[in-house]
Amino acid sequence: MTAPVPTDPASWLDAAPGGASLGAVALPDGHALFRVWAPLHEHVSVHVQRPVDVVVPLVPLSHGYHEVIVEDVSVGAQYLFRLSSGEECPDPASRLQPMGVHGPSEIVALRQDGSAPRFVGPELAESVFYELHVGTFSEQGTFAGVIPHLDQLVDLGVTTVELMPVSQFPGSRNWGYDGVFPWSVQASYGGPAGLRVLVDECHARGLAVALDVVYNHLGPDGNYLGRFGPYFTSRYQTPWGPALNFDGPFSDEVRRYFIQSAIHFFSELKVDAFRLDAVHAILDTTARPFLEDFAETLHRRAAASGGRVLVIGESSLNDPRLIRPVSRGGLGLDGQWSDDFHHACHALLTGERQGYYCDFGALSQLAAAYRSGFVHGGQRSEFLQRAHGRALDDGAAKQLVVCTQNHDQIGNRARGDRLARSLSPAQQRLAAGLLLLGPSVPLLFMGQEWGETAPFAYFTSHENAELARAVRRGRVEEFIAFGWRAEEIPDPQDESTFRSSRLDWTRAAEPSHRALFELHRALLRLRRENPAFQSGRFVDVEIREQQKILISRLRSAEELVALFSFSGQTERVELPVLAEAGRGHLLLDSEDPRWLGQGENRLVGTGSPHAVTVELAPNSFLVLEMSRST
Amino acid sequence: MTAPVPTDPASWLDAAPGGASLGAVALPDGHALFRVWAPLHEHVSVHVQRPVDVVVPLVPLSHGYHEVIVEDVSVGAQYLFRLSSGEECPDPASRLQPMGVHGPSEIVALRQDGSAPRFVGPELAESVFYELHVGTFSEQGTFAGVIPHLDQLVDLGVTTVELMPVSQFPGSRNWGYDGVFPWSVQASYGGPAGLRVLVDECHARGLAVALDVVYNHLGPDGNYLGRFGPYFTSRYQTPWGPALNFDGPFSDEVRRYFIQSAIHFFSELKVDAFRLDAVHAILDTTARPFLEDFAETLHRRAAASGGRVLVIGESSLNDPRLIRPVSRGGLGLDGQWSDDFHHACHALLTGERQGYYCDFGALSQLAAAYRSGFVHGGQRSEFLQRAHGRALDDGAAKQLVVCTQNHDQIGNRARGDRLARSLSPAQQRLAAGLLLLGPSVPLLFMGQEWGETAPFAYFTSHENAELARAVRRGRVEEFIAFGWRAEEIPDPQDESTFRSSRLDWTRAAEPSHRALFELHRALLRLRRENPAFQSGRFVDVEIREQQKILISRLRSAEELVALFSFSGQTERVELPVLAEAGRGHLLLDSEDPRWLGQGENRLVGTGSPHAVTVELAPNSFLVLEMSRST
Repeated sequence: MTAPVPTDPASWLDAAPGGASLGAVALPDGHALFRVWAPLHEHVSVHVQRPVDVVVPLVPLSHGYHEVIVEDVSVGAQYLFRLSSGEECPDPASRLQPMGVHGPSEIVALRQDGSAPRFVGPELAESVFYELHVGTFSEQGTFAGVIPHLDQLVDLGVTTVELMPVSQFPGSRNWGYDGVFPWSVQASYGGPAGLRVLVDECHARGLAVALDVVYNHLGPDGNYLGRFGPYFTSRYQTPWGPALNFDGPFSDEVRRYFIQSAIHFFSELKVDAFRLDAVHAILDTTARPFLEDFAETLHRRAAASGGRVLVIGESSLNDPRLIRPVSRGGLGLDGQWSDDFHHACHALLTGERQGYYCDFGALSQLAAAYRSGFVHGGQRSEFLQRAHGRALDDGAAKQLVVCTQNHDQIGNRARGDRLARSLSPAQQRLAAGLLLLGPSVPLLFMGQEWGETAPFAYFTSHENAELARAVRRGRVEEFIAFGWRAEEIPDPQDESTFRSSRLDWTRAAEPSHRALFELHRALLRLRRENPAFQSGRFVDVEIREQQKILISRLRSAEELVALFSFSGQTERVELPVLAEAGRGHLLLDSEDPRWLGQGENRLVGTGSPHAVTVELAPNSFLVLEMSRST
Repeated sequence: MTAPVPTDPASWLDAAPGGASLGAVALPDGHALFRVWAPLHEHVSVHVQRPVDVVVPLVPLSHGYHEVIVEDVSVGAQYLFRLSSGEECPDPASRLQPMGVHGPSEIVALRQDGSAPRFVGPELAESVFYELHVGTFSEQGTFAGVIPHLDQLVDLGVTTVELMPVSQFPGSRNWGYDGVFPWSVQASYGGPAGLRVLVDECHARGLAVALDVVYNHLGPDGNYLGRFGPYFTSRYQTPWGPALNFDGPFSDEVRRYFIQSAIHFFSELKVDAFRLDAVHAILDTTARPFLEDFAETLHRRAAASGGRVLVIGESSLNDPRLIRPVSRGGLGLDGQWSDDFHHACHALLTGERQGYYCDFGALSQLAAAYRSGFVHGGQRSEFLQRAHGRALDDGAAKQLVVCTQNHDQIGNRARGDRLARSLSPAQQRLAAGLLLLGPSVPLLFMGQEWGETAPFAYFTSHENAELARAVRRGRVEEFIAFGWRAEEIPDPQDESTFRSSRLDWTRAAEPSHRALFELHRALLRLRRENPAFQSGRFVDVEIREQQKILISRLRSAEELVALFSFSGQTERVELPVLAEAGRGHLLLDSEDPRWLGQGENRLVGTGSPHAVTVELAPNSFLVLEMSRST
């Protein structure tokens, strides 16, 4: 029961086995190392509860860290930290909370294949994300439940499975943004062991794994971090609670806690990419912002291991700085989630104008997203009542992750209804084409590829009664303002709300749904086979306002032209072609009977030596290949 | 009583006569134009009280602006705006508050010399600032009181008079940071007319004028802005009150209000430079931050008028981004106030280690400031309890404005005592040499050049009794924590505290004070005659730790070497010289009898063909010129 006392915590923290720089780790000799950052406490003990009951004081090190090795304690042991106040709390760097957010933490086994070659996922521009929520993706609602469907995802053609947050949250049903132990993996999903198996199964199939991580707030129940140290600050507020302390006193150690948690997921659980939730709510005025620090440290760590890690921030700021290289004054993230493309599509397809859709609805805005990524590049937003964003750098559209549906865009609706509920089959095909033939990195939300009609509602399972009431009330109040009646809003706490949000895999096999899947598959193949889609840049984007037609031209070995019609009637379009290109032919047609198209898209013929004419059915698209005239 | 109704406020706001884009302006035809941004009100009237009593409704325009032309109302008229609630408030863009912060606003005369060629002040790197507080600089405490001393400032060799904030504040005695009408000029100083005369008198002598402006908060008494619109936000807090709304809804208009106020000072009052107070307290997460917006707009405006404007931010962040060009991801300010040099000097010279001085005291830190501007370029600060700052770009030290004394570094001490109270004459000379022979832009605080011994205490004259009590109490509590007794702290509200802070110009003429003035004059001449001082970069900075000697080498036509000794005894230093340089000679000696030096600095001779040897008295410095051996 002795501990080494290194002088520089930074060095041993970084050099720790299995990324176990904080928390508890089973050592090869049958003992366990406990480390915790608790600068508010002179003395911290570890209370091991199972299989033995023993209390061991930790040795205070520098900068508020404490550490001890406890003999004959290993995997499966459950423990709490006893603070100088006498209070016992779970480990801030807990890997597993087998009895929930208020119970003891558990020591988990380290991965044994440390020397195996690292799986290397695709670059961002080559990626196609598939976002899924573990609890509702399968009947089981666990990591194990995901595995049987992986082959179908490979067949579909996505490259990366993106998991909504998996850190331990209160109860057993939650989107994940109420997580309170950032190093942990939800026990009811299968814990770290379950996640590890899922990641291995993905890698075995060539799929990368991205993880949604939340560094802007912690959930409202089971958040013990503040007892240990100044993890939070009162200087800033987030919509979801106190902001994390990334720029005040002791913020170096708070940053290290989060960065090391990601290193843990990268090194030990082999995650390939991180989606940082709502980085606009990470407030930090330092000269070296946390986000830059995070991305740089992760990138360095990945390079050292011969791997690759992608760092992607969800941002509402439309700020090119996030993804610019540090050498040009940027924060150096690989990519950012961007909503502009979604909003432009959604407003056009549905006609909705409520809330933030008030800024959208023009075909020219979709063209802007196709041309340069952002629609708001400094223009005034009526929704925000101010100028918004800044023009993206040329070609940086390939660093945007975009969607026509995601958990937020579906689940933040009053009833969580998907586009499959409001769009016609033709419109659903059109949406698929717009997304997968665009200049940015596409993300599909689970089930979207086959037109799942189940909602993805907002659900929780808070065990704290007051909190449960507040969440229920908040949800109703949010939508009453938009004219909904209280009884129309699903109760987030009701288990049936959660159940209704599960994918129905029997539906996926029905012909109409299968047909939509096949279209997605064909589009992804087309995208894969034409790397110019990854350039973030089209040769030309044009709209025919009166006909409601968007035309995008993509240079590649042969010229590709995509035409998208939002018109309610058949439109005839004459299309100039490049001088060196000859007669075109149809490469992909949204009205093809293979995906149950019912309209008639036709390449009518060449109107002139340098033009082709096409007829487009309502809400359809087609891709033409202009063969070089030889 | 009619008003034009332009459709795009931005265009008429920018094109307005005399920079009068907001507020009240006397038109050439004897009428007056009133404009106000009041988006919280459907209807606003102007209540002209003198010389006639008339209430005229304004016409609502777009984006919350209101405007009207009132006939037969002109310069000298006093008015309030009547809001839809019936409340009458002074104009947010008031130019003059003749009866204080709660009284009516007054229309002032426009400058008539609009076509005269614009005075063009020096570039930042060529500048030497002289900070003064109008109220205590002269017996009169007015702009007019400054004028008789301007010739002496020219003689001294400064280039730019920097005025502490002059916007209307509560009462008649205030540092200026409690100002509440950012467009106005304190009536008791002489109002805009008085400032205009002072600026003209400066320009006539070749002196530029810099103005300290406060965009991070407004003072606690007489702040009516919130009645008109969402100027403030509750999302952020500053140490001095609610933060201004630079990134929320309606922030475009809030930004315009402040930017137009600066354009007013630039165009109408002919100010040449702005020192933006505490920009670290301006919180703004937009993709185009207010500070960039401000600097870019002012620079564009100045260029269009054939002039130059300098935008300098006071920042505690040690962030190179503030002063990097926009093309490299910066905010594009010309310069920033930086405290590191001050703290390094102060801690070395005084031995003080309280408060933020705990991070300082090493000669190597002064060397770091001489080498690269910042001492904290990412290193840990014990005071801040985290890593601080980021390395400045090479050569960017010339964009830092530094000092050995300023209003804050003196006035934020318990008793406001200057260095002249605690340093020996030799140390005062040493401090002058360090400042004026350094790589950054020097700033002198009024009276420092002749060793004024009067304090510059913290003083206020709040008329609100509760506020007065709170300020008194706050001041005492701040210093009791450092071991002071309450009765030792001057009462900020007591007029004698203000009086004691006045410069004593009779003292300036005494031989010992005149001697220090002469040293400053000689140093400034040396700096002016060697433009390499403006490169922001020395060839080499070296310390001899044991001897407490700092040696800086500056390449110019001839090599200049400065040696600074912090030693308590005479030190002999052998100094290698550049191969092509021959024997050196003394160019400036801090122990020269001209400034009453009492020690003996000697150039002993060449110890070798490539070295010279000097003897340095305690706390002295000298500058050697190494003539090229021909």
